[in-house]
Amino acid sequence: MLSAAMVQEIITSPQNQFVQEVRALLNQPKARRKLQAFAAEGARVVEDGLRSGARARYVLVRAAHAPRVESALSPRPDNLPILYVEDRLFDSLADTVTSQGVLGVFDLPEWQLPDALNFALILDQLRDPGNLGSILRSAEAAGAQAALLSPGTTDAFAPKVVRAGMGAHFRLPILNLDWELMAVVLTGLNVYHADMDGELSCWEADFRAPCALLIGGEAEGISPAATKLVTRSVRIPMAGGNESLNAAVSAGILLFEALRQRSEGKNL
Amino acid sequence: MLSAAMVQEIITSPQNQFVQEVRALLNQPKARRKLQAFAAEGARVVEDGLRSGARARYVLVRAAHAPRVESALSPRPDNLPILYVEDRLFDSLADTVTSQGVLGVFDLPEWQLPDALNFALILDQLRDPGNLGSILRSAEAAGAQAALLSPGTTDAFAPKVVRAGMGAHFRLPILNLDWELMAVVLTGLNVYHADMDGELSCWEADFRAPCALLIGGEAEGISPAATKLVTRSVRIPMAGGNESLNAAVSAGILLFEALRQRSEGKNL
Repeated sequence: MLSAAMVQEIITSPQNQFVQEVRALLNQPKARRKLQAFAAEGARVVEDGLRSGARARYVLVRAAHAPRVESALSPRPDNLPILYVEDRLFDSLADTVTSQGVLGVFDLPEWQLPDALNFALILDQLRDPGNLGSILRSAEAAGAQAALLSPGTTDAFAPKVVRAGMGAHFRLPILNLDWELMAVVLTGLNVYHADMDGELSCWEADFRAPCALLIGGEAEGISPAATKLVTRSVRIPMAGGNESLNAAVSAGILLFEALRQRSEGKNL
Repeated sequence: MLSAAMVQEIITSPQNQFVQEVRALLNQPKARRKLQAFAAEGARVVEDGLRSGARARYVLVRAAHAPRVESALSPRPDNLPILYVEDRLFDSLADTVTSQGVLGVFDLPEWQLPDALNFALILDQLRDPGNLGSILRSAEAAGAQAALLSPGTTDAFAPKVVRAGMGAHFRLPILNLDWELMAVVLTGLNVYHADMDGELSCWEADFRAPCALLIGGEAEGISPAATKLVTRSVRIPMAGGNESLNAAVSAGILLFEALRQRSEGKNL
């Protein structure tokens, strides 16, 4: 761990080990797997990480940063290294506006599957990082117990996904599963595939029984392996000329339709 | 209008009048207002524009382009100039991947307000172009009659908004209104403000009566002028630790909850 004296220094060298590590974590899925860590940008997300009990390894702060960064880092674990980085060097790592001048490195969370899974989200062939992050955010808010990612889905801990997730990465179990394990995990659940041409309207579907929503990529849809797991396909009924929705919007509508049905009579 | 011979040539000069006009239309809101035109990128959006009856002025095609571009341009009006542009020059105007090598210039649509407005969307202080486009796409799909944009909302015809709108710009009436006119237009409608801390759950709200949904920016919310028009504030009930959603996802959930209530007993 770094001493207090070191902490006050401002890093100016691109060769600095922390700077190099963060650059790798932001850009290389392989580095995230090898180091079992990821970088989270922005005051809100770093704050969420510190509050969630995730293990923070260190935080990089731009020498000139938004005041919001101070409150995001307070309180924080006593021994958490805060490393100040010269403005231009920081900006070469992360976008100033979206990061607000703060970036935390956290352990990759290790989640166990919930014992009695009854409301899950399956993501297959999703490629757009912003959409994936936004979907994880919605899944957490709708009370899904886990997001199950198929082998063909983009890395959930890539920076744009983490940014759009707004802290969901620290609280929602996110599991990468191969199709064999996926089939085992989904035993006893109805798997509803979100599909424009689905046989069942999402308002007719019964989401109260144990179920999983399966969302495919906007361009490619779902893979043949995913198709085998589908119980029913559901569509979002539409009234206008445009017969499609953004993948994150579709996922949000279905997740909250499930929550609506599941919370009937409860006070949310 | 250009002759057939000219059409076969490949534009290579950055000084070409069409190239310069498109550059201005993509980058300057002022140019869009002055020329009363906008540029739409991508095969799907250009195709939607040609099918919708919007007036196309001309189309730029990258010399090397995706095969999808050919089908997007067929059929097309006989006298529509198709201008081929050298690859690198085209790429200096528009991203190749998202544009797929095609870009159409269309008249800005001139919409009248529907006579009996009973389901509208109001957008205030939305700044994120991707979110705005995605919301317009959802509004059309949910059967909203119009999107009413307040003075503080980002330009709906900016390229990222048009791209995310996926053709909604050609079919959904999009109107920029000042607050005085907005108040007149909304007479007799319930205005529901989407708000995390809203007094009413969206599942309890009655969206069947004539109504408008008011969506604010993710960071700033709605302006004081917008607040004066609000009848009730509605929240999306949440079950998880994360008490917020992406603005486009929130808008989608509310629009389709309104459609669900309004279509009860109908076959969508």
